[in-house]
This record gives sequence, C-alpha cells and structure tokens, in this order.
Amino acid sequence: MSKTESKGRAKRADNCPSHIHPTPADYRGIYMISPSGAVREPAALALACERLGGMGFRTAVDRTALAVDQRFAGTDAQRAAAFTRAIKQKLPIVMATRGGYGLSRLLHLLDWQAIADSGKRFVGHSDFTAFNLALLAQTGAVSYTGPCACADFGGRKLDALTPDLFAETMRGELEILSFEAPGADAVDCRGVLWGGNLAIVASLVGTPYLPKVRGGILVLEDVGEHPYRVERMLTQLLHAGILARQKAIVLGRFTDYKLAPHDQGYDMDAVVAWLRGVVKVPVVTGLPYGHVPTKATLPIGAKVGLATEDGMAYLVLHEHHHDHGQDHGHAQDHAAHGHCDACGHDHGPSHAPGEDHAH
Amino acid sequence: MSKTESKGRAKRADNCPSHIHPTPADYRGIYMISPSGAVREPAALALACERLGGMGFRTAVDRTALAVDQRFAGTDAQRAAAFTRAIKQKLPIVMATRGGYGLSRLLHLLDWQAIADSGKRFVGHSDFTAFNLALLAQTGAVSYTGPCACADFGGRKLDALTPDLFAETMRGELEILSFEAPGADAVDCRGVLWGGNLAIVASLVGTPYLPKVRGGILVLEDVGEHPYRVERMLTQLLHAGILARQKAIVLGRFTDYKLAPHDQGYDMDAVVAWLRGVVKVPVVTGLPYGHVPTKATLPIGAKVGLATEDGMAYLVLHEHHHDHGQDHGHAQDHAAHGHCDACGHDHGPSHAPGEDHAH
Repeated sequence: MSKTESKGRAKRADNCPSHIHPTPADYRGIYMISPSGAVREPAALALACERLGGMGFRTAVDRTALAVDQRFAGTDAQRAAAFTRAIKQKLPIVMATRGGYGLSRLLHLLDWQAIADSGKRFVGHSDFTAFNLALLAQTGAVSYTGPCACADFGGRKLDALTPDLFAETMRGELEILSFEAPGADAVDCRGVLWGGNLAIVASLVGTPYLPKVRGGILVLEDVGEHPYRVERMLTQLLHAGILARQKAIVLGRFTDYKLAPHDQGYDMDAVVAWLRGVVKVPVVTGLPYGHVPTKATLPIGAKVGLATEDGMAYLVLHEHHHDHGQDHGHAQDHAAHGHCDACGHDHGPSHAPGEDHAH
Repeated sequence: MSKTESKGRAKRADNCPSHIHPTPADYRGIYMISPSGAVREPAALALACERLGGMGFRTAVDRTALAVDQRFAGTDAQRAAAFTRAIKQKLPIVMATRGGYGLSRLLHLLDWQAIADSGKRFVGHSDFTAFNLALLAQTGAVSYTGPCACADFGGRKLDALTPDLFAETMRGELEILSFEAPGADAVDCRGVLWGGNLAIVASLVGTPYLPKVRGGILVLEDVGEHPYRVERMLTQLLHAGILARQKAIVLGRFTDYKLAPHDQGYDMDAVVAWLRGVVKVPVVTGLPYGHVPTKATLPIGAKVGLATEDGMAYLVLHEHHHDHGQDHGHAQDHAAHGHCDACGHDHGPSHAPGEDHAH
C-alpha cells in the first residue's frame, strides 16, 4: 500500500492497516457538483477528473459546476438544482468540487429524503459539513467528509495517502484508521461518527440541521480560526450540552491561524487543556483530517469504534466479518467471542476493555 | 446638547432629540471590572476614570481589573469573583474595562439571580454581549450594551456623542435615538430590545444563555467578520427560527473586514439584500452602534419602540410621561390618547399607524 510506505507529512497515518476486499465495481463513478464557492480554476477540476480516472473512477461534471454568481458557484437555485440532477444520474458517488461558503443557504431548499433515498455516496469537505450534518439530522443517512475534487485531486501534487484513503473508504475496504495521538485520553468506545468543520458544526446549533447525536464520536477540525474562536465555538457546544453527550471528541487539524503577542502563551494546546478541564469526555488529538493535504475520508452518521493505546488511536470505520492481520490483535473468529467496545467485533469472554486490545 | 451640534463622523446620530430631566444622583458612580481580555494599557483605564470623573461620575476599579492570565484579565475564577464584588460594592453602574474574549467561559459560573437582584446597571460592549444576553435569558433583567472604559473613554480622543449618549441613558434621560437609515423598511413597532455583537449572539444559540425573545427588536453589529461570515451567522439565526420571531432587525456597523477578488461584488450590501429576501421582518440599517467611536448605549431586555419614516429611524428607548419637543410630533397629553405602536405613548384615536406619526 502506498500509504503504508509513504514518508513525510503523511507519516502520521502511515501505519493504517489496509485489508483489500474484492472491489465493488459500482462504486467506481463520481459525479461532480459545486454546492458552495465558485470554481476559479476549471483546469484544477479537469485535472482532478483525469487523476480520478487514472484511479479507475469514471467522472462526470454537473452542468453548473463551473457557474459563477458573485462568490458562489451559481445562484442558490442553480446549486440546489445540481443536487436534484446528482441523485437522478447514474454514477454512485457525488463529490463537491470545492468548499467555500454556500451550503448554509441551501439547507431549507434541498429535498433531504430524496437525497437519502438516492443511495448516492456524497463526499466533500469544510463547507460540505453543512450537507453531511443536515442529511444526518433530517434522514439519518450516512454521507462522507473527505476530499474535494479541486484541492485534493486537482492540485500540483497529489497527497500520498488521501487518494487511497478516499478510494478504499468508498469501496468499503478501509477498516481501521490508525494515527499517532500523543497524550490521547484512554478510550474504548463505539458510537455514531459525526462532526466535521467546527465553524459549520457550531453554526448549525439550534437549527433543525444539527443531528441530535447521543453517545457519538465527535470529529472536529478548522482552518484560519484563532484558538480563542475555536474555544468559543467549543463553548457553544459545551453550553448546548452537546459535548457532554458524546463518548469521545476527536480533534483533527486546526491550521492557518496566527497567534498575537496579546495571547501570552494561549494557543491551541491551551484550548485542548481547557477542553479537558470542562468535559469528562475523552479527547483524542492527531486525526489526519482538516484543511491539510492528508485527510481521511470519514462516514458521517455511521457507527464506528474508537480506541487509544500507547499514544496511538484506532478509528474502526468499517465492521468486517472476515479474518484480518495479526497487528489488529483481535481474535479471528469473532462470532465465537464477546463484544469489543472499540470496533464492534466479537471477542472471547476473556477480553476485558484495555486488555489484549492492541488494534 | 453637544451631540446635536456635533459634526463629522458623529453626524449620523446628530439629530437625536434630548430631553433633560433632573439628574438622579444615584446613577453617578461606576465600578470597573475586567470580565474578558487583559487590559494591556493601564493608563487608558486611568484616563477613562479621569474623564468619567470630569463628567460627574465617581469611579472605582476592581482589584483584579488589571490582572493578566494569558490573554484573559485573570483566571476564570478571578473574573467571576469580580462580579461578586461588583454587586456587593455601592456604586450603581458596573462597566467593563474592555471586551475581547472571556465571558463565554464564565456563563456557567456566575450567580445570575444575585446579579439581577443587585439592581446594578451593567454596561459593556462586544464580548459583553454574552453577559447581556445571559442575564436576560436567566433572569429577565435589563443590562446595557454601550461603551467600555478603555476604548471609549481612555483613548486619545473622546467621541463627540458616545459619552453623552452613555450618561443620558444611565440617567434615564435619553428618550429617542434617531438616526439616518437610508432604505430602511417601513416599521412602527414595539418590542424587547436585544442582541449586540452578532458573533456572540450566534455563539449562544442552542444554549441556556440565549434569551427566548418573541416580537423583539434585534440589534446586531460586528467587526472583522467577512460578509459571508456575517451571513452565515445570520443564517444560523434564520434556521433557528429566531429572525422570523422578531418585529424588526436593526443593523449597526459591520466594520474592519476585507473583501477579496473572489467575492465578485458580494459585500455587506449583498448580505442585507439576501437578508431581506429570506425574512419578512423589517430590516433597518444605520444604527450608530458597533466597533466604531460613535455608539449608542442601549438597554438590552427593555421594551422599546421603533419607527422609520423618510429615511430616518427612531428608536424610542425610554417611555416618558411629560411634555416633549414638537419635533417628536406626538400629542403632549399621552394619557388622553390612544396607543402608539412605535414608542408606547398614548395618542388620539385618530392616530393610525403610519399617519401623523413623524417622530
């Protein structure tokens, strides 16, 4: 696997186990739509399609994907209509060309049930969090937070891990995403994975578009937000009672902010320390996810497992019912064993939380 | 009145009528606390006290007002304790030295009922919106959004209007704040004034610290927020059903943001146009309030009147039961007349909304 051999910035996720299944051919087509900001570089979208083609994905671009209306990729009506076309066409995956801003404006215009009923696999990033969470809130359907076409497949350089993480997740192959999580709180749980871009999550609080997830695994990332703003957004989730209801809070990357002399040592580490002080929920940092080249593709709304051990975290994305590698440490015959909180697998009755449990 | 004679940047509010009452001596003392960011220039606070002294206010500075803990004016416990001291001391007004960030952290630590029962007049700006709204939500008590000590009284130059607007409002003298509101929607209503800094208002949605105001007059301002972020925050209020429940939305100043080439004409005017498209609630712009030198002092939680006519808006802050100037256009003997929606005054039965109603 390229991602297990990759170096440098991809190192954090470089020990993701990967278990190749037969590839379902029906998840090899991608329809591109622009629900948020206008695409300023059509060439990036073309390059993305070309590269995805090289990975075995057929692609088609929605006819208003390059539309421009002020900062938006077309008027609200145009962007909403693209969803209608996306669920009627035949390709199984629908990918956002880019984020930006614009989905918040569409939330009351989309036919969520029709979107859920379509069975399409929607994937996008950042502003797309509004779509992921609204779909989950309105219908319970799973969608994906992961790469966008232009930034992740249309840039000068392809990330060493992101394409494989995307392709394997789409094909249902990636079972466990492991990553370095120094100082992670002890956790061994299972719950609905949700969240995404923190600014978007916070902006949906109090609206019908925030899913009411209890016992969930809340994933958060953000870009260009000063730590005090990150903290203020977390405070909203805290005061709204949302944080306390989760089984775990998993932080991705918080990037591209600028500290000021006035901060006097207040930084993202201070925010994480504050967070641990105000909630009893385990906090795990280091998830390869955010406005960074290396990003996981995560199923928003799916039940997943999470465990930490020895500075590593293991996100069990996909339940499997077959043998897998020794490094996972689980008994091979799940059916004959007890339940494992971390990944939903069955284990022997002798398996206690934290014991013999090195994913 | 200095403010009716002032020029330049203060011009917008330069026709505020002013009706001088006997001054209640008991509103002539101010206790300074620092609930948010650390005061970096103690000299500004000293100058503010000196100038307020010149205006007839006794001042006292809380003993941790100059404390520093990272970016905060002391630890959370120190800043919360300052409120306890503030309600026990004798001066009737409690003013925040400055805004910044920090009140969100204290909302669950403060004794709101004790604060309300103290009868103190709390005033502050920006981050202080969290205090204003939480107090209203938790107790129904009125507090003030207006100047802070350092920025508004401790700067190089005193604004020509802000000090008088503050002093008159504290003394209960300022009855009507009139301001230029070009393109304002027609409105003639009465409701609870609330709101403040939009980022703070939005950050309280879904928490127990956002008052549930129906039929209110929602005032909003912000600084350093790109129009798309302003719109996203307004969208949160929209989707939460908050905007539709108001009788009017009054926009103060939105300043210090930077448009980008990508915006392609999208700006604050576009946001206001969008807002008018998504809500039926009248929108009034031009309120002298925000992160600008000229700012009104407004009673958050008080019932006020609002009317617009001929490009002017009239915010009736204070019900009065005495004669006032001809320019207000109301009948002088209120008791003998019918009700005026705009300011709660009584008028003749012949007074229909929009008729003979030039405040």
